[in-house]
Amino acid sequence: MKRIAILGSTGSIGCSALSVVARHPERLDVVGLAAGENVDRFVKQVSHHRPRVIALASPAALDAARASLGNPTVDAAWGQDGLVAVATHPAVDLVLCASAGTTALEAVLAAIEAGKTIALANKEILVMAGSLMTEAAARRGVSIMPVDSEHNAIYQCVDGRDPAEIKRLILTASGGPFRERPAATLSAVKPDDALRHPTWNMGRKITIDSATLMNKGLEIIEARWLFDMPPDRIEVVIHPQSIVHSLVELRDGSIIAQLGVTDMRLPIQYAFSYPERWETQLPALDLARCGRLEFDEPDRVRFPCLDLAYRALAGGPTLPVILNAANEVAVEAFLAGRLAFTGIPAIIEDALDAGAARLTPPPTSLADVRELDAWAKRFSGAAVAGVESK
Amino acid sequence: MKRIAILGSTGSIGCSALSVVARHPERLDVVGLAAGENVDRFVKQVSHHRPRVIALASPAALDAARASLGNPTVDAAWGQDGLVAVATHPAVDLVLCASAGTTALEAVLAAIEAGKTIALANKEILVMAGSLMTEAAARRGVSIMPVDSEHNAIYQCVDGRDPAEIKRLILTASGGPFRERPAATLSAVKPDDALRHPTWNMGRKITIDSATLMNKGLEIIEARWLFDMPPDRIEVVIHPQSIVHSLVELRDGSIIAQLGVTDMRLPIQYAFSYPERWETQLPALDLARCGRLEFDEPDRVRFPCLDLAYRALAGGPTLPVILNAANEVAVEAFLAGRLAFTGIPAIIEDALDAGAARLTPPPTSLADVRELDAWAKRFSGAAVAGVESK
Repeated sequence: MKRIAILGSTGSIGCSALSVVARHPERLDVVGLAAGENVDRFVKQVSHHRPRVIALASPAALDAARASLGNPTVDAAWGQDGLVAVATHPAVDLVLCASAGTTALEAVLAAIEAGKTIALANKEILVMAGSLMTEAAARRGVSIMPVDSEHNAIYQCVDGRDPAEIKRLILTASGGPFRERPAATLSAVKPDDALRHPTWNMGRKITIDSATLMNKGLEIIEARWLFDMPPDRIEVVIHPQSIVHSLVELRDGSIIAQLGVTDMRLPIQYAFSYPERWETQLPALDLARCGRLEFDEPDRVRFPCLDLAYRALAGGPTLPVILNAANEVAVEAFLAGRLAFTGIPAIIEDALDAGAARLTPPPTSLADVRELDAWAKRFSGAAVAGVESK
Repeated sequence: MKRIAILGSTGSIGCSALSVVARHPERLDVVGLAAGENVDRFVKQVSHHRPRVIALASPAALDAARASLGNPTVDAAWGQDGLVAVATHPAVDLVLCASAGTTALEAVLAAIEAGKTIALANKEILVMAGSLMTEAAARRGVSIMPVDSEHNAIYQCVDGRDPAEIKRLILTASGGPFRERPAATLSAVKPDDALRHPTWNMGRKITIDSATLMNKGLEIIEARWLFDMPPDRIEVVIHPQSIVHSLVELRDGSIIAQLGVTDMRLPIQYAFSYPERWETQLPALDLARCGRLEFDEPDRVRFPCLDLAYRALAGGPTLPVILNAANEVAVEAFLAGRLAFTGIPAIIEDALDAGAARLTPPPTSLADVRELDAWAKRFSGAAVAGVESK
């Protein structure tokens, strides 16, 4: 029996994770659940899975949940303390981090320090603090299992191989909804257009990131930390069907790939079952019905976020934090109708330029990361306001 | 240093194998070479690689080679004894069986008994005597490494995995040159049409087998023995580009595939280097340049050889021997212009029907296999003559 905690249980990944748990009640036990403000869904999850510890984002949300649950025996907390309590509960073996953004940064680091296996569905945490996280994980002998379908695929392809055999990681990218849209019309893109992802059904922020290819940019940074691979050995190939989840080139030129249906329950279950593999009731991939799998170079001119990510990665631990913060601010502004689609990479580039010009030392603690993140968000917020006032 | 013997050194696979050896002189040493009647090429190979033991098919060929070589210190023999001497030489670690047809059956079994690792590029040996070979290999703790690109791919995908995790093997087939040819025109196919394979450059027999899909049929039987997998868990998918060399479906529905350029030096080198992987100087596979990979169901009506192979495999150890023998006779007759392309499966089906109706016990020794093979060849030869006289 594997005892798990889920940070971000009411989101898309959290819900899929709980459906995986429901399929394997004899193998998985939910010990802790944490969510934000979606009290109704959270209360249903808690009633069904009966965790020992719960957390919500605010005292108000927690009070509302408590009132609905009427269960006095469960440990409950809110905010950062709540996340840490769920992630470090002594009965927990594995923490699935499926919360959005950087909220769970401290909780995941605390879980690593407490020796918990991490299943990571959140990109921002490694982008912000990859060095701190992987250093702590190595010191504590803790595994960080990627849940992202691409990194999960790479994990499946490299597992058990001599690292010296790995020549190149090849991340596939669907290319998003604007893969074939002419450059001149990209500035007119509306949030609703960008929220229509061709292959994956995901949250709003990540769907916009897919449309700009920043999602792939963040994944390049993530892959650098998860697989200890230099950026020049991490590549991106556009693959609109999202059937080949990613590939690994080996020393002899042979390529090993992982393919599957586009259902996040597959990588989530693999992270839960590892090193075992359990049966699923998902339909098998039928290649003949897929018909064709297409591959293409990413267009780095129409989608500059990819190069921004490589630039940030080359610039040490400071720039990825700025990249991520500026992207969060810019995507939020785009979703609010305050910034054009093409304004997203422009805001990020400005923030990277400004960050590279600052003479502050690189972040060496989560507090440093938070401070840098806050600076980059202020800077980008002001930049968005500047664009608006023009 | 791995010390190798090559049976069939002057054929397509043999020559590729020697070019792999030439790339890795510090890792591979050629101890033995055996070939058929191509004395000129063989003499060049022997002069270059300086093996300790050589063999040719006939005394005349051997005498001619000896005269050219003027080298009295090399051990030399001919025929079956020659093949066995090369395959079992005490200095040999690994025997690459790249000879065509069933000539090397005895030599490979002798090599297994002598504890040599087998790299098998020949399908017929496992189709004829899969049970005998795998039984002997298990008893002697000997590995049989497939060199066929499809089985080599599967080997790469399953290596190190718990066999209980493997749900299905999926062999890819290019579909051959007649993949899209209407059924009504197949009977008019000439040998030259069939010898134009779209993706692989191979010998004549195997190229015709690719055009009838019998090559895939033989591979299904081979996979059954190599991976101890029941026929209902071995499938075929048409993939005209031959980039995905084969795939393995795992218990959770995840699929692991091996991809690469279509160059036999890749699987040959893997068989030689295993469990290591060595660099190659082959160009890396560029997926974006490949553009698209297509997949389709095989057409079992136009290409009945696939179902004939499944039928033979279901019929115990007798029918695969008959299938293979009848196919050899039929392909030879087709290449000689004595049989229509559509006559190939017809001859095989007749032989399977006749074989199934015979009341002889299944073969339990190589002598039994040879006897059955001879019967099936006589039967099929007469059947071809019967078709001709009509």
